[in-house]
Amino acid sequence: MDYMKESLKLHYEWKGKIAVKTKTHASNRDELSLAYTPGVAAPCLEIQKDYSKSFELTGRWNTVAVITNGTAVLGLGDIGPEAGMPVMEGKCLLFKEFADIDALPICVRSKDVDEMVKTISLISGSFGGINLEDISAPACFEIEKQLKEICDIPVFHDDQHGTAVVVLAATLNALKVVGKKIEDCTVAMSGAGAAGAAIGALLHACGAKNIIMCNSKGIISRKEGNTPAVDRIAAFTNNDNIEGTLADAMKGADIFVGVSKAGLVTAEMIGTMAEKPIIMAMANPVPEIMPDEAKAAGAAVVCTGRSDYPNQANNVLAFPGIFRGALDCRASDINEEMKLAAAYAIAELISDEELNADYVLPAPFDERVAPAVAKAVAKAAKDCGIARI
Amino acid sequence: MDYMKESLKLHYEWKGKIAVKTKTHASNRDELSLAYTPGVAAPCLEIQKDYSKSFELTGRWNTVAVITNGTAVLGLGDIGPEAGMPVMEGKCLLFKEFADIDALPICVRSKDVDEMVKTISLISGSFGGINLEDISAPACFEIEKQLKEICDIPVFHDDQHGTAVVVLAATLNALKVVGKKIEDCTVAMSGAGAAGAAIGALLHACGAKNIIMCNSKGIISRKEGNTPAVDRIAAFTNNDNIEGTLADAMKGADIFVGVSKAGLVTAEMIGTMAEKPIIMAMANPVPEIMPDEAKAAGAAVVCTGRSDYPNQANNVLAFPGIFRGALDCRASDINEEMKLAAAYAIAELISDEELNADYVLPAPFDERVAPAVAKAVAKAAKDCGIARI
Repeated sequence: MDYMKESLKLHYEWKGKIAVKTKTHASNRDELSLAYTPGVAAPCLEIQKDYSKSFELTGRWNTVAVITNGTAVLGLGDIGPEAGMPVMEGKCLLFKEFADIDALPICVRSKDVDEMVKTISLISGSFGGINLEDISAPACFEIEKQLKEICDIPVFHDDQHGTAVVVLAATLNALKVVGKKIEDCTVAMSGAGAAGAAIGALLHACGAKNIIMCNSKGIISRKEGNTPAVDRIAAFTNNDNIEGTLADAMKGADIFVGVSKAGLVTAEMIGTMAEKPIIMAMANPVPEIMPDEAKAAGAAVVCTGRSDYPNQANNVLAFPGIFRGALDCRASDINEEMKLAAAYAIAELISDEELNADYVLPAPFDERVAPAVAKAVAKAAKDCGIARI
Repeated sequence: MDYMKESLKLHYEWKGKIAVKTKTHASNRDELSLAYTPGVAAPCLEIQKDYSKSFELTGRWNTVAVITNGTAVLGLGDIGPEAGMPVMEGKCLLFKEFADIDALPICVRSKDVDEMVKTISLISGSFGGINLEDISAPACFEIEKQLKEICDIPVFHDDQHGTAVVVLAATLNALKVVGKKIEDCTVAMSGAGAAGAAIGALLHACGAKNIIMCNSKGIISRKEGNTPAVDRIAAFTNNDNIEGTLADAMKGADIFVGVSKAGLVTAEMIGTMAEKPIIMAMANPVPEIMPDEAKAAGAAVVCTGRSDYPNQANNVLAFPGIFRGALDCRASDINEEMKLAAAYAIAELISDEELNADYVLPAPFDERVAPAVAKAVAKAAKDCGIARI
């Protein structure tokens, strides 16, 4: 199927992928008086007295805003806020289908960090959570950081953290397959944008001791002239502060994670890695190296974003359950512990008997995933003391 | 029924009066590839090329944001943004039930005009129209004015203009009942807030030549020390620039319109009005004078906001059809001509044979209303050249 052509045709037919449905009616005088004036004054006054009731007397408990400014939409780049809306609506569709969450698509006409933060924080009282989407780096880091400080609801940039959770889940199971421990592994990474930075941070939080991350200029090291975003990465990676190319970074590495560009990795580079190398080639739609080629070059486990190969790393494994869990316990944040819990929950759905090199991640449509993730995430929030119910 | 008590109980059960429904699915690989990546790139690129496609390829064509800052919620006053959300959700319910419009409730944590304008304008690309709600005067005037200048979609403060349209519709029919023409009538008004100012302006636009408007200090006149909002009213009212009380304003008046407080009008005051006076006593839930008392004092036609008396002036007669019409023709604004058309459309649903002193407005649940208003509003937009399809 020509997905592009067919999708365009369908979007003209759908005229929007989500709509509003009513949970009650206003078709006679009594109904109107209960759902609207004068009766509606009662829940209003209840919330005025006790702010927390806004999560009980309105749909807020189950509502997530999916917000973009259209600066990094899919692989298309800065196409503008309105042009990003079909993706936002798609995300809202997935929130509903995978986790029964009412998600609302919102685009913001601004590329300014302060304006984005101000706008989103001022409307945050309308929602139970905020999913940032397709906002370019490095602005996305500062926007998310400031919003997490200001808002009393979870703020989660899915391009960063959803991707990181799924990559970690795949890594945990892949390590089981090859019989290695994350603490002993060297990780070579290609791509230090939103996803790369978050994956590096989460692997590090999970115990990976030596991560060597490359951007388009080569290996990131601690040196003069780094941008703040690069400095943050340099601070916890590249223990020996080496310099060089991606090929240098991959020499002897146990794990490769790519969130960069098609074709950046060659069979030769895989040949220089440690024994039983694990390859996560996430560039979309064409990965850093195709699975067949990677396997032929000696890769023990290969994951990509592609649905036509085994081990598809798809964010839909993470974000629906993560938000479901956060909303269910009314968490004030989605923190590292909750993300780690999500990754373990995804990985653990595959039993030791089932686990093999071609099955390290559950399928995107495995219905066990979202509930398992939600449960683990809510538990982690409670354990951290950030659950409010 | 104790509407307050029962409504609170129901709000705890509903946990939100609206939710999201999906218009397609993502339950297998093909569906996911069409509604989301990779296929969704196609409608994104189409919108990037041609901004107007955002009204065709997403739900924008049918989406209205219902936005408040919680500063003038019902008669409760400044109860805060989150506390206003049950009303916003109720409004969204009415949008769906009466006009099949997908309305999203949004509260903004700001009382600052500039912040409100900035925030709402930056998210306006997500919607096909903006319904401002329960924002206090005088901030609401400036917020609406600036948004109308900035936004390329209709911006409509329902507390002002929805009320004005319904009052005008009732007035048009009441004048038929008493056999008077609006050009010949003196209108006395009580209340110069959001609703009062808009009602005055629309009656004036419809031909009323002498309107005398009172606020809590008495008759508004052209004099030193007026606020800008009062000055705007003084500019087109009170031809003879008289001073005095509401009682003075009502002497000899043909029409009284109250959007003020319970009990401000007495039988004696009605006794001083012109022959066959028309009384629109809109204070909620208790009007400026109760219908029985007004009739006993000689009122020819009485309208209130109450559902337990004839001639209920309810905004639900106006806003669903007005937005339906504006969205249907993709109007860039809701202007005076469209509001006048809406008022005439509502009034004309009652035939000359049916028309009588107790039936000058269609019932709120009369299903002919929204379609008739929508049709008239879209036609007016086209006639003005502000329809885009």
